[in-house]
Amino acid sequence: MDRAGAAALDETDPLAGLRDRFELPDGLIYLDGNSLGPLPRSVAARLRRVIDEEWGEGLIGSWNEAGWIDLTDRVAERLARLLGGDPGEVKVGDSTTVNLSISLDAVLPHVAGGVVLTEAGNFPTDLYVAEAAAARHGKQLVRVPKGEVLSRLGPDVGLLLLTHVDYRTAERWDAPAVTTAAHAAGALVCWDLAHSAGAVEVDLHAWGADLAIGCTYKYLNGGPGAPAYLYMRADLADDVAPPIPGWWGHADPFGFSPSYRPAPGADRFMIGTPPILALAAVDEALAVFDDVDVAHVEAKARALTDLFVELVDIHAAEAVVLSPRAAGLRGAHVLLGHPDAYSVVQALIDRGVVGDFRPPDGMRFGLAPLTTRFVDVWDAVQALSDVLLTGAFDEPAYRRRKPVV
Amino acid sequence: MDRAGAAALDETDPLAGLRDRFELPDGLIYLDGNSLGPLPRSVAARLRRVIDEEWGEGLIGSWNEAGWIDLTDRVAERLARLLGGDPGEVKVGDSTTVNLSISLDAVLPHVAGGVVLTEAGNFPTDLYVAEAAAARHGKQLVRVPKGEVLSRLGPDVGLLLLTHVDYRTAERWDAPAVTTAAHAAGALVCWDLAHSAGAVEVDLHAWGADLAIGCTYKYLNGGPGAPAYLYMRADLADDVAPPIPGWWGHADPFGFSPSYRPAPGADRFMIGTPPILALAAVDEALAVFDDVDVAHVEAKARALTDLFVELVDIHAAEAVVLSPRAAGLRGAHVLLGHPDAYSVVQALIDRGVVGDFRPPDGMRFGLAPLTTRFVDVWDAVQALSDVLLTGAFDEPAYRRRKPVV
Repeated sequence: MDRAGAAALDETDPLAGLRDRFELPDGLIYLDGNSLGPLPRSVAARLRRVIDEEWGEGLIGSWNEAGWIDLTDRVAERLARLLGGDPGEVKVGDSTTVNLSISLDAVLPHVAGGVVLTEAGNFPTDLYVAEAAAARHGKQLVRVPKGEVLSRLGPDVGLLLLTHVDYRTAERWDAPAVTTAAHAAGALVCWDLAHSAGAVEVDLHAWGADLAIGCTYKYLNGGPGAPAYLYMRADLADDVAPPIPGWWGHADPFGFSPSYRPAPGADRFMIGTPPILALAAVDEALAVFDDVDVAHVEAKARALTDLFVELVDIHAAEAVVLSPRAAGLRGAHVLLGHPDAYSVVQALIDRGVVGDFRPPDGMRFGLAPLTTRFVDVWDAVQALSDVLLTGAFDEPAYRRRKPVV
Repeated sequence: MDRAGAAALDETDPLAGLRDRFELPDGLIYLDGNSLGPLPRSVAARLRRVIDEEWGEGLIGSWNEAGWIDLTDRVAERLARLLGGDPGEVKVGDSTTVNLSISLDAVLPHVAGGVVLTEAGNFPTDLYVAEAAAARHGKQLVRVPKGEVLSRLGPDVGLLLLTHVDYRTAERWDAPAVTTAAHAAGALVCWDLAHSAGAVEVDLHAWGADLAIGCTYKYLNGGPGAPAYLYMRADLADDVAPPIPGWWGHADPFGFSPSYRPAPGADRFMIGTPPILALAAVDEALAVFDDVDVAHVEAKARALTDLFVELVDIHAAEAVVLSPRAAGLRGAHVLLGHPDAYSVVQALIDRGVVGDFRPPDGMRFGLAPLTTRFVDVWDAVQALSDVLLTGAFDEPAYRRRKPVV
């Protein structure tokens, strides 16, 4: 494989045309779309319209005239297709953390087992929220190493909470198999899809998932701190009470009744007035996926990360591949280990290759299938090779520099 | 009083210059800023910068380079001044409903009394959330008519939840007196400031308030569905656990510790990654208030509503004033009653005067002190007078038209 070989892969990539729908600074190789997806050009245009015309001129009338009132429904429809669920099972709004907390508070009173099981290395916020929710319902959060999760399942486990693709190593659970095993043991399963949706194949119906949560500002490109989502399978959602019963999740929000009656399905998890500016951005960002076949996304995530790992082994072997080597066990990013990871990441940023540092010694590179070219992978690994071989990272300035979030 | 008299009031209005800082369509008299504040011109410019430059070009680096990481702090500082609290007592983000729910969940375990007391006519969402939260903590929500709130205080009341300015009638509680009475009876007090901040004087320290919540999309002009806030007095906040412990409210958010440790004060109530686009809009909208003396806002709210009530009595007496007649007992909006209120509101909108309908027979007119002129009040009442005297509202089309939110 040489650069021409990578370019040849771009020639036949069915997703290649999508890159032009994003603003990406010239010469920059942006491999941090798993932290903040780049700006879709149509989002900039849509927000100008929402701000100048809909808010500025239309004012309060825009709730009807500009369709603000149905915006959450439209975004839920777009998301449902990407997640493999029905629109009525998807709620859009609030943060991932709020959505996890209210999902757990809603279902934990209905599960028999006294244990909420998770992996010790799960994303820290998921641990905090699950621990607090478990305690509220007289249950206990049990954290075990990744390799012991399946064997820990048993009659005392009421709910299993896992992140589908690990935020550091990109390790990917076999979601259908794990869901089936958990169900066989009598537990519900909640999947955190933060590093999955828009990056790899997600099919909640096929998995048989009960609950899921996720954010839209990574591979879905909804903007910094964009509204998140939750999924709850229809028959479960209709049986549980939303713990934060807000007017937007009322069966008749404009009836202003003094008593609460939940909307059907996942709509009951909507809470306050929806954040229109942020939702319009998400709506437009998701529209980029409208004609995208998720199978192509999955295939390209595998091919990009395969190429990256292969080239690192050849050209930058001082860095250790800490992600799984089998593409099917991996998400769309790759974690490399190096004792000077922090400085190496800084040196790469100065050479126009943006990844991020993960303590203690990790370098994370997100290969978002919609915007990353195979030649970007080639060029990024060449830059990495150069930084490592020349020792260019070994500068005090790099060690002092503030980290990127 | 004639139109020239109203114009003379505008001449001496210390806030008159602020109107030019907003986009307001020519010829429109917008009296619905209590539902959705108009667009500050600087917000449109700021968001273009945030979207095109900070997100589009700066990408992930903007968390540091563009100061996204401190944006919640900067907005909290601006809000604290308007609310009469310290920045460390104010948390910005999430919806008003989420903020009410987590405030109650945080403090209810610490109050002795088994009753959460509120007014039966409180904003419906406040009732739903308070009922759910009270039940979670083995307490009971008791709803009494407005006139019986103070006499119902007693040793069994742990917390009093009131909306400072009634969303329909604009009735305003004497917040310092009520807070003092509740404290004397051993109860904490939570104020919903949705129709207060930016419209009338709010001084949480002077009131001795324990908790407050509110939104930024009405009189604070933060945009449709803009992030909300909560206030908790410093010594109370430091003693309670945040019920949704998210990474943004962690004492060391970037330490990614597997265990949660709350940030000091109200910062512990921050939850997920902050919504940067929406927060930038709020920051810029609040900047309009930077040089504004809140005493001028209060005085103008009184003067505008006094004039409105006086002119309705003279020129549109078929409409009944349902708001208090003493300005000190009223917020910055006025509710009028009329059997055909729905159609009258529609007819007024067609004449360029935007208010809103409140079931069953109310017409609500918000007189936002920053953007409403005294001549607007004159012109609005003349339009109302014309619609009522000519019967122009009596058209089937008006009855069929969809309501504004």
